[in-house]
Amino acid sequence: MKTFLVAGGDMRSVSLARTLSENDMVSAIGFDGKIFDNSDIISINKASELPEKADCLVLPLPVSADGVTLNCPLCSCCPTIRELSAGIKPGGIVFGGKISPEIHRYFEEQGFAVCDYLDREELAVLNAVPTAEGAVQIAISQTDETIYGQQILITGMGRIAKVLIKILTAMGAKVTAAARKYSDLAWAEIYGCTPLNISEIDGELYKFGIIFNTVPSLIFDEERLLSLKSDCLLIDLASKPGGVDFRAAEHSCIKTIHALSLPGKTAPVTAGRIIASAIYNILEERSEHS
Amino acid sequence: MKTFLVAGGDMRSVSLARTLSENDMVSAIGFDGKIFDNSDIISINKASELPEKADCLVLPLPVSADGVTLNCPLCSCCPTIRELSAGIKPGGIVFGGKISPEIHRYFEEQGFAVCDYLDREELAVLNAVPTAEGAVQIAISQTDETIYGQQILITGMGRIAKVLIKILTAMGAKVTAAARKYSDLAWAEIYGCTPLNISEIDGELYKFGIIFNTVPSLIFDEERLLSLKSDCLLIDLASKPGGVDFRAAEHSCIKTIHALSLPGKTAPVTAGRIIASAIYNILEERSEHS
Amino acid sequence: MKTFLVAGGDMRSVSLARTLSENDMVSAIGFDGKIFDNSDIISINKASELPEKADCLVLPLPVSADGVTLNCPLCSCCPTIRELSAGIKPGGIVFGGKISPEIHRYFEEQGFAVCDYLDREELAVLNAVPTAEGAVQIAISQTDETIYGQQILITGMGRIAKVLIKILTAMGAKVTAAARKYSDLAWAEIYGCTPLNISEIDGELYKFGIIFNTVPSLIFDEERLLSLKSDCLLIDLASKPGGVDFRAAEHSCIKTIHALSLPGKTAPVTAGRIIASAIYNILEERSEHS
Amino acid sequence: MKTFLVAGGDMRSVSLARTLSENDMVSAIGFDGKIFDNSDIISINKASELPEKADCLVLPLPVSADGVTLNCPLCSCCPTIRELSAGIKPGGIVFGGKISPEIHRYFEEQGFAVCDYLDREELAVLNAVPTAEGAVQIAISQTDETIYGQQILITGMGRIAKVLIKILTAMGAKVTAAARKYSDLAWAEIYGCTPLNISEIDGELYKFGIIFNTVPSLIFDEERLLSLKSDCLLIDLASKPGGVDFRAAEHSCIKTIHALSLPGKTAPVTAGRIIASAIYNILEERSEHS
Repeated sequence: MKTFLVAGGDMRSVSLARTLSENDMVSAIGFDGKIFDNSDIISINKASELPEKADCLVLPLPVSADGVTLNCPLCSCCPTIRELSAGIKPGGIVFGGKISPEIHRYFEEQGFAVCDYLDREELAVLNAVPTAEGAVQIAISQTDETIYGQQILITGMGRIAKVLIKILTAMGAKVTAAARKYSDLAWAEIYGCTPLNISEIDGELYKFGIIFNTVPSLIFDEERLLSLKSDCLLIDLASKPGGVDFRAAEHSCIKTIHALSLPGKTAPVTAGRIIASAIYNILEERSEHS
Repeated sequence: MKTFLVAGGDMRSVSLARTLSENDMVSAIGFDGKIFDNSDIISINKASELPEKADCLVLPLPVSADGVTLNCPLCSCCPTIRELSAGIKPGGIVFGGKISPEIHRYFEEQGFAVCDYLDREELAVLNAVPTAEGAVQIAISQTDETIYGQQILITGMGRIAKVLIKILTAMGAKVTAAARKYSDLAWAEIYGCTPLNISEIDGELYKFGIIFNTVPSLIFDEERLLSLKSDCLLIDLASKPGGVDFRAAEHSCIKTIHALSLPGKTAPVTAGRIIASAIYNILEERSEHS
Repeated sequence: MKTFLVAGGDMRSVSLARTLSENDMVSAIGFDGKIFDNSDIISINKASELPEKADCLVLPLPVSADGVTLNCPLCSCCPTIRELSAGIKPGGIVFGGKISPEIHRYFEEQGFAVCDYLDREELAVLNAVPTAEGAVQIAISQTDETIYGQQILITGMGRIAKVLIKILTAMGAKVTAAARKYSDLAWAEIYGCTPLNISEIDGELYKFGIIFNTVPSLIFDEERLLSLKSDCLLIDLASKPGGVDFRAAEHSCIKTIHALSLPGKTAPVTAGRIIASAIYNILEERSEHS
Repeated sequence: MKTFLVAGGDMRSVSLARTLSENDMVSAIGFDGKIFDNSDIISINKASELPEKADCLVLPLPVSADGVTLNCPLCSCCPTIRELSAGIKPGGIVFGGKISPEIHRYFEEQGFAVCDYLDREELAVLNAVPTAEGAVQIAISQTDETIYGQQILITGMGRIAKVLIKILTAMGAKVTAAARKYSDLAWAEIYGCTPLNISEIDGELYKFGIIFNTVPSLIFDEERLLSLKSDCLLIDLASKPGGVDFRAAEHSCIKTIHALSLPGKTAPVTAGRIIASAIYNILEERSEHS
């Protein structure tokens, strides 16, 4: 059994703390005190208050907005990142998401191991699920037609695209998947899509009622926006700056939505569990290698 | 080629008129004039204005709120039902949804054939698709977890249940389907669900994170509501009065949603097309039998 | 706990006896003695030998070839049907598949209840699964192309068609389903097929690489056989006389296979379990009603 | 339009030649003359006979059994590999499957480009489809139960595993996928399997009715074979020497099948088309880069 100190974050961190507490001892800092009532999780106000230092500190995603104070939207008084080190055992491990080089260096200099759970491939894979579900929800609610029977384009064949394909084909959409690599196009076809070489996308754009972009480079420039159907819905799932010229989109009549950070918005409880599972995998691997 | 007079209704009727106009001549009454700009559909203000009487009158769903005036939410001045008969050819056909016995009798006495498209089994089947999509959208947006991995109960094995099963299993939910007939339970299992004899539902209710009820009789009474998980979401898709004791639900902490008329809300364009397709099927059958 | 006497039949009956013996006491007659070695099932040679008469006699499918002797391909000496009544308790139940009116009357006159498990809808539903799997196996082994990408026609939208559609669409075939009722065509489309009104089949027949017929009336007559692709494989799953003019097929170059009784051939163990489950359902219903 | 000389091989090469001839000019050598009757393909007996040398020579898979003579099972007199160079234009391209270093060097020294289509990832992806179909056919035909409801283990999460998962889950099997990487296990779960860390396989082996091995290293040694269910069917899809101790398997009662080269056996026509498509992709890439 390990001891964890979960520090700050949104509902994902609450869920993460609850998941860890099913098997291990968890303290929490940076949350409104009542959140963990009726649970085994002990809420504290200062890391130095902990009766026994924790094996692991778990920082939120993102760790901090300003590089100094902990990101804790669910608490009125936020501790600094630095003071959290008082809560960790010598040789303990610090987990976090998108840890900045400065914070990484700080904890390492204090003698702790530092692991970014966002670097884990399995977390990225599992996060594709809430992302795809959130994207499908947007598509259902922002169009006047069913997904069923709809002509849908997905650009890219990464994780999110694969999960979207699974859901949308089952819903009866006619899905075209645009990619560059022949092997990705082969997979697209095997999973029930019409494959489209992304270099030939221009001649096909007029067909689609919904487009999901997952490619993080400017695919939908002004010219391509103009070749879309006027009632096409374009959902950009690529992280900033995304794959759409949003300024040009405003001038056109095309409805565009830059849907970011969907796991935390659509399914924070699941997103927290996915992080917990990545943390356990990291611990498992460390114990195998030692 | 037939001539249709589409009278009143919401966005479904607009879509219906547009679909009919792809193959046939369509006039419209009971809509704001601009709706059909840039289309082949001729907007008129009075049925008697029609240069040539129509083969078919298409009434909306529902036909009328008060039994006298046409249901036309997209128009400021609504004609009466009776004056519409001036727009139909002798021996023409009147289509409508949930036509009251009085209106049915009125048109029949005028010498018209009267057909309720809501009686068509294929319309009910196809409407299950927008209903299921709307229900899934509610489930995604009203819970903090993914559908993926969720324990979901569906009560009933009718059309909506079957489409829900198709979508939810593909999304990775663990779906239990409760029904009474052994053959329905066999289908539930074939389609990837855990079958549950509805008489044994009580011992299992505590498991589910989401419940979709499709049975139009009181399944979820006060006692059963109390045996649900406190964060369970209960979506009732059965038409009024539904299958849930909503008064008892208010007193419990269970989140319940009575989701009615989803096709018109979630996907009016598709819903209109489905009606158009049912109308064509009726016409096809009539021409075969004559 | 009930006592069963399982009499004769092929590997399905062996599996049926084994399944029943998981919960109940089972004796067996009409099997080679060694089959049930290392099991709780007691093999007997004469029904009159049973130390205690059974609650239920389970006859095989079919019960008898000549109306007199038990159908028992796994035994060298077959008892007569009539002598089996010595093994049943007064008021006991006789189960069987396709029981002839004569045999039915005989057992009823002896004071036994008689139930034909082939009349159970859930058995017919579940039997569609081994039938569809057997049909798919034939299709894979008898063609030089993959199912994936193949143009496949299924005629009829009954149970077997539905299970076939589920498997073949998942394998990536392009499935057309031909039926007469609009609601069946709507379901075909929802389940991922191209719907085809069976009255318009003629113009489409040249397209298909594989055809599964499930309609028990002559669909594929000489003229239609001549309009098929020369390398088309036509698998008839309809019970005798089937839906194909097999004599005309011999003269054409079309490869036709009348695939009958697939559950017993492809998956006798599963087929036996399905019968056991139908028997338990019948017993359950009888106990509810009494 | 290109000109191709297709040399030798089995039914895959026949299909490959036919596919190429849909868009290009094809001559064939190393086939019984009648095979290409009624087609646009010109059969020749000697490469030097070609009226005009071809842009591309297409060698079969494998190219040769002895390194000297062309592999041509459908012809009585086989040309040597070397004499084929008389049929290629200066600067032409030689395609082949598993080309030996000697043959590769020979053609390069003659001034030809040499491309092994077996190195193409998209060919490997698409070949997973006939492989999986062939494996499923074996599973249906070699067991007495349905795939539906069966407990199935797949070891490995490569291409074949992914296609198998798609088919088997749709057929209603309960599929466990064993892999080492956490991200592979995440995908296994997303695609509807129970994930199993391959290091924990031992405790689970007793459960499975069918096992598909895709890992090309000795997973199923004597000890593991002994922990399988006695009626388990073990299908090894890994190329020689495979993942099973076949000698130990013979002594045990476990039914094992080493299923090799399934695309050519199960679906030679499709396998030939897949090679044609890889050749066109190679040509496309070469023309883009030049």
